[in-house]
Parts: sequence; structure tokens; C-alpha cells
Amino acid sequence: MDPTANGAHIRLSRPSPSYWRVTFDHPPLNLVDPAFVLEFREIVTALEADEQVKVVVFDSAVDGFFLNHSDFLAKLEDLTSIPQGPTGLEAWPDLFVRLTRASVVSIALIRGRATGNGSELALACDMSFVSREKAVLSQWEVGAGLVAGGGPMARLPRLIGRARALEVVLASDDFGGDLAAAYGYVNRALPDAELDGFVDALATRIASFDKWAIANTKRLVNAACLPPDVEIAAGWATFIASIKRPAAQRNLETLFEDGFQKPGDVEDRLGAYLGGSARERSQSRAA
Amino acid sequence: MDPTANGAHIRLSRPSPSYWRVTFDHPPLNLVDPAFVLEFREIVTALEADEQVKVVVFDSAVDGFFLNHSDFLAKLEDLTSIPQGPTGLEAWPDLFVRLTRASVVSIALIRGRATGNGSELALACDMSFVSREKAVLSQWEVGAGLVAGGGPMARLPRLIGRARALEVVLASDDFGGDLAAAYGYVNRALPDAELDGFVDALATRIASFDKWAIANTKRLVNAACLPPDVEIAAGWATFIASIKRPAAQRNLETLFEDGFQKPGDVEDRLGAYLGGSARERSQSRAA
Amino acid sequence: MDPTANGAHIRLSRPSPSYWRVTFDHPPLNLVDPAFVLEFREIVTALEADEQVKVVVFDSAVDGFFLNHSDFLAKLEDLTSIPQGPTGLEAWPDLFVRLTRASVVSIALIRGRATGNGSELALACDMSFVSREKAVLSQWEVGAGLVAGGGPMARLPRLIGRARALEVVLASDDFGGDLAAAYGYVNRALPDAELDGFVDALATRIASFDKWAIANTKRLVNAACLPPDVEIAAGWATFIASIKRPAAQRNLETLFEDGFQKPGDVEDRLGAYLGGSARERSQSRAA
Repeated sequence: MDPTANGAHIRLSRPSPSYWRVTFDHPPLNLVDPAFVLEFREIVTALEADEQVKVVVFDSAVDGFFLNHSDFLAKLEDLTSIPQGPTGLEAWPDLFVRLTRASVVSIALIRGRATGNGSELALACDMSFVSREKAVLSQWEVGAGLVAGGGPMARLPRLIGRARALEVVLASDDFGGDLAAAYGYVNRALPDAELDGFVDALATRIASFDKWAIANTKRLVNAACLPPDVEIAAGWATFIASIKRPAAQRNLETLFEDGFQKPGDVEDRLGAYLGGSARERSQSRAA
Repeated sequence: MDPTANGAHIRLSRPSPSYWRVTFDHPPLNLVDPAFVLEFREIVTALEADEQVKVVVFDSAVDGFFLNHSDFLAKLEDLTSIPQGPTGLEAWPDLFVRLTRASVVSIALIRGRATGNGSELALACDMSFVSREKAVLSQWEVGAGLVAGGGPMARLPRLIGRARALEVVLASDDFGGDLAAAYGYVNRALPDAELDGFVDALATRIASFDKWAIANTKRLVNAACLPPDVEIAAGWATFIASIKRPAAQRNLETLFEDGFQKPGDVEDRLGAYLGGSARERSQSRAA
Repeated sequence: MDPTANGAHIRLSRPSPSYWRVTFDHPPLNLVDPAFVLEFREIVTALEADEQVKVVVFDSAVDGFFLNHSDFLAKLEDLTSIPQGPTGLEAWPDLFVRLTRASVVSIALIRGRATGNGSELALACDMSFVSREKAVLSQWEVGAGLVAGGGPMARLPRLIGRARALEVVLASDDFGGDLAAAYGYVNRALPDAELDGFVDALATRIASFDKWAIANTKRLVNAACLPPDVEIAAGWATFIASIKRPAAQRNLETLFEDGFQKPGDVEDRLGAYLGGSARERSQSRAA
């Protein structure tokens, strides 16, 4: 992919040579499917190779969704058959790990739901700023009998401590902007009307600084706190194992029956849904 | 002990096979004595062995005290002669470490004082939720010339950072619910009237999820952040050394003269007491 | 230096044998020059050697500045020719590392700007309490094309998590007291009128406790969370490399032209300055 071109699911723009924006645009739900992974891989590769880019902002063009969970109607093989990346990790976690190590500064601008992959991307970014009114972060996986595959068990405890990390991943509930900021899950929650301006000013500011100083400072922060790749690999392997289990398959089946992956209440209020009556239906069926 | 029976100091109930409650009921102060340790050991062993339990909530039936410091009138030998546990650690820290590693999700519901052991248990639990009005957390040990033995020096810095951890253990003061939540010492402080309902709903929610997904997710979080056992062992050994020192013995003597381990001001406001006039009396006596 | 004497830049007082105060008094800007480093070294050595001191509070006698960046008009060789310290690190980072390991409890009382070295000292102290109205923390280095040398890339991620640490060091902006406290960058922000009383009471309290218990408790906290010295060494080496680069030299030149190291707007509002028009002038000149 020409890094200046726009893919089917992700748009790339360059406000300046040193400041890029990556906009997720896969309506109606910004699901992550194998084609999305391939597009995202091109962008990460371009970010690594470019000698001028210093800051990249990730945002969304889809109302209500920053970036969503994986598309469970896609063939798992289409995802797992993508070759391992240069880190030796499978394709999707490889991209997150490369983003954390890249010399470019990555900022997540979150409006709408960051469910599963969306939350994992925020955790892999260098910073995240969210809409106080419209952001929702969710590691929903355990609530569906799955284990998250994109690194939150490795990254969240180092960011917000063990107790709050366990709450996020085990409660599998929706976290609004203010609570996410209070927990340190994101850098800050800002009034929705101020979010775009704040992030743009910060990105422009950092993009005006010296690339060598940015890169070496980030490198030293990484030396202090990045999780070892083996933890990311273990998380991915456990996700793959989880999805093949009958418990997860039953849960997903019930979710789809109730409207999963279609615009509506299940997607909009996934945390509430997982704790509620639909789940009880699933369990009585399985019993 | 039959895990469904009630011991002398701790009551066990089972709202459902997947959701247990452990209630500390050792009035008037919920002190931890060697018999308490033995009862707690039975409960941890039962939690590890049971194949259905997914969540355990710890709370208290004693007004004003979630769980308190050790009983310093008990013979130290009765505690230290309990055999080491399966982790190779001494009995009391062994139980905390096993709780952190167990596949069951542990939640501390804190109303009243969590002093010493109470705070240490909260830190060993997977999550803690406290009463905004009625919770007090305290690592009081340094204020009495002791060193804490149940792991706070290992667990607090990883949870809330070095500076706040040092403040908690060196100031030896009382931390109310709101400050504890602001520091990340606990997950959240809730209005007292909402605390029971919140924790019950969260426990019920997690208990409805798949045990394999819960266990594997917790295991991966643990891989990212549990302190190595050697730090827990070092803390316990230093506690044992501290208690035998004349400085600690003198401090404890003064504490007892002023009402320690009896209902009243010394127990209710231990943090204020340690900073106040009684301490000065102790020091002038020792001089 | 006699530890009871007052140096040219730093004053030492002893409210009691167990409670010392170190006051930065190098008007008008509390810059750190090689003479300051030598004075500070004497104080750290005295703190390590004294058998009675338990608490040291660092504060400032200079209005508007707690402790500031290095004096860039001093000869770099005068700094780098100071022999390595007992840790094997270069003189300045050696002092911070020794302070973290010392058995004495160090508390930063921050009113005014803690820029560069000032922020790094706060991070090396065991605790920090700041004026809500008058404290400003700043790791400004990247904004001038430099890399910070006193350890913030090692210490900040462990204290406040990777995302907020990256924001602090990459945005190179000014952080007021409330935001610093919300991030956990400092222990607490207090109303300016209450700050001195709060810190004095806390220092007096801890100084009344047993030195052995304090020292061993701090030692165990350190075992859990101090960064390895190699990270501090890498940070210092990168700072030295950064300052010799043409990009940094050009930035410093512009800063000096606009009033750097003189009382006034550039020093008072360094964060705003680095993001603004003066920077643009510098870049157009370099182009």
C-alpha cells in the first residue's frame, strides 16, 4: 500500500510530513477483520520506515465506535495465516508491539467505543486522550468466555496496577471516560468539544520537536516498562485457545442471536449486555 | 475444617456454588491470632480445591473493623510454629501468596479499619472496594517500631508507585476511603449505602462468567505483576526480626498501657495515636 | 563541607538531630551549576554518614523556583570532570541514586518551578508534596532537543505508568500541582497555605519513629521498585550525547536570545515558550 493512499478500512492523512493521522473508517461498527489487519500492517510499516514522521494520531470516522472487537464471522484462518511479523509474534500482536517500539509517537484519540482491539490499541499507543461524554473502553472478552489476545493482561497491570487491571479484564464491563482517566487507563478524559483541539495541539507541539530527542527519550522509557514479548505471545496463544472452546462458541452463538455485530443495543451497551439476561439464556441453554 | 462450616473467628457462606463469602467475625476487634491463621488456611485450601467457586468476597461482621493487626498477646511461637505452606513461605504470608495465585477471584469489601493484616489482605486480594465514610486503611507498623510482615513493601509500590507506597508505610497513618482510592490503594471508594450492592453485583457478574477464561486471564495478569516470593519472604523475616527488638517491645508496652487491643481510642484512631503524645511518653521513658 | 555550615547555593538546617532541612538558595533562578552539584554531594554524604538523621526535607528559598534546570553557561567539563560517585555513576545521577537508597527519608516540598533537575530530584525523593497554586513540574528537555539526564525515563514510568510518563517527557510542558497529583507524579497537591504545615508535621512524625524500622521498610520498598542503575547510566549518557548535537545547540542559542536563564517569561513559562513562536523562529533559522 502506498502510505499516502486510503485503504478500504483505514484512511491515512498527513497534516504535515512530521504529523500523520490514521482514521478507522469501517462502518457501521469498525470491526477488525483480516483485511483490516493487513491495512494496519502497511501503515505500521510505513510509520517505521518514514524518516520525517514524528507523531501519529489514531481516530475514527465511524460514529459511536473508535475501534471495535474482531469480526467473528471472518474465518479465523484468514487471520492466523498472516505470517508472523518481524518481532516473531503473530501478525496482530506483532503490530501492537512494533507500535510501542517505533520511534514515532502514537496518540489514540478516543470517541465512541474502544472495545477489545480498540482498548488494546489504546494500551499499545504511547498516550491516549478520550471524550469524557462519548468514550467507552471495554475488555469484554472474559464476559464471553474468551481471553483477550492483544496484550491487556501484560500492559494494564503495569499501567494501572494489578487490582484495577484485574477489575477491567475480569468484570468485562464498560468503562466511561472519567472512570478510565481516574484509573489511569487513559491519560486524560476531556470534554468532547475540547478533545480534537487538545490532541491536535499536542501532536503539533511534539511534531515540532527534534526527532532524535523524541526517539531516544521514548527508547529509554520503553527500557523501563515495556512488557517482554513472551507475555504478549502467551496472551495471544491463550486467546486462540479460548476461541476454540465450546463455552466461547456457545456464548458467541447467543450473542449473534441477540444482535452482535449489528448496529444496536448489544454492540452499544456490550458491558451491560454481558451481565444481563441474554447471558442467562445462554447459560440455561448450555446446562 | 468442613469448608461449609463456620469457625470460631471466620464464617464461610455460599450464596451459590460459584460465589463464596468469607466473613471475619472475631469481636470486638477482629484481631488476627494463630487460631485465626489456621482457620484462614482451611478456607484458602478449600478455595483452591473447589472446582466450582469462581469468586470469593471477604467482609466483616464486626462493627468498625474489617480486619485488624495481629494479637500481640498471643505467643509468637504459636504463629511461627505453624508449618510452612506449599509455597515454602511461612504460614501467614503463604496464605496471601496462594490467594494471589488462586484461580478464584478475590474481592475485599472494606468497611471499618483494615489495619496491618487487614490492609495486607486487601493488597493480596484481586480487587478491593471500600466504604467512603467508614473504611480506614493503615500500615501502622513503622509507627510502633515494627516492619510489616504480610507483603505491603512488595505489593504497594507495584500498585501505587514508590512515593505513595513509602508514604503509606513510613507515615504509618490512617488513610480514609477517598484518599485510598485517589492513591489507587483500593479500586474504588463508594458511598457506604451503595458498597454492599455494588460488590454483590460485581461478584455475581464475574461468577456468571466462564471459569477457564477467568483463571487464564488472571494467570496472565499475575505473570505481568506479581512480586517474586523472595520479596515476600524477606518482608516476613524482617517483621520477625523487628518484633524482637527492644524498641518495638517498648513501643508495644506503651501501646498496651494506653489501651491497645481493647475497644477504644487507641484502636479506633491508631494513626493519630502513633503520632501523638503517647508516643512521646514512650520515647522519654526509653531515653 | 561541615554539614552544619551553609554553602553558597544550598543551606542546611537541623530542626532536630533526626530532622534536617536542605534549602536551595541560589537566586534568582535556582539553576544547577557544577558548584551546586559539589555542595549537594557534601549534603548527601553527610546524610548517609549521620547516625541520627531520619528525615530530610528539600525546599527552596527562591521565590518562584524550587529547583531549576542546569546552568548552560557553565562549562560542561566542570560538571563531567567531577569524579564518578560510589555507585559508579557520574556525579549528578550518582547523588540521586544514593538519595533513593539512603536510609534517611527524603521529602520534596515543592513551591515554584521544578524544572529539569527539580523534577528529577522530586522523583528521586521518597515523597513529594506540592503547592496546588504555585508548583510547576516540567521535564522540558525534549522541547529543546535534549534528553533528560537525571533519571525521569527510568523513574516516571514506574511511578505513573508508561502513557503518562511519555506525555510528561515528550510534551515537555508545564504540569501544575493538581494535574501532577492526579497523575501520581507527586504524592499530593495541597493548598499553598497548608503545604508547609503539612510537610513539617509529616517530617516530625516520621522523625519520631524508630530508625531501624524506617530503614528496613524503605529497603524492602526499594527492592520492589527501584530502577536498575544501568537505566540511570543510559539516561545520563544520552543526555550528554544530546547536548553536543547541533539541534540542541541551535535551540539553546535561540532560548538564550529570548531570555533563557534570566528572570522573565522564558523561565517562568518555559512550557508555553517551547511550544510557541520562539521555537518557530529557531526552526526557520535552522532550515
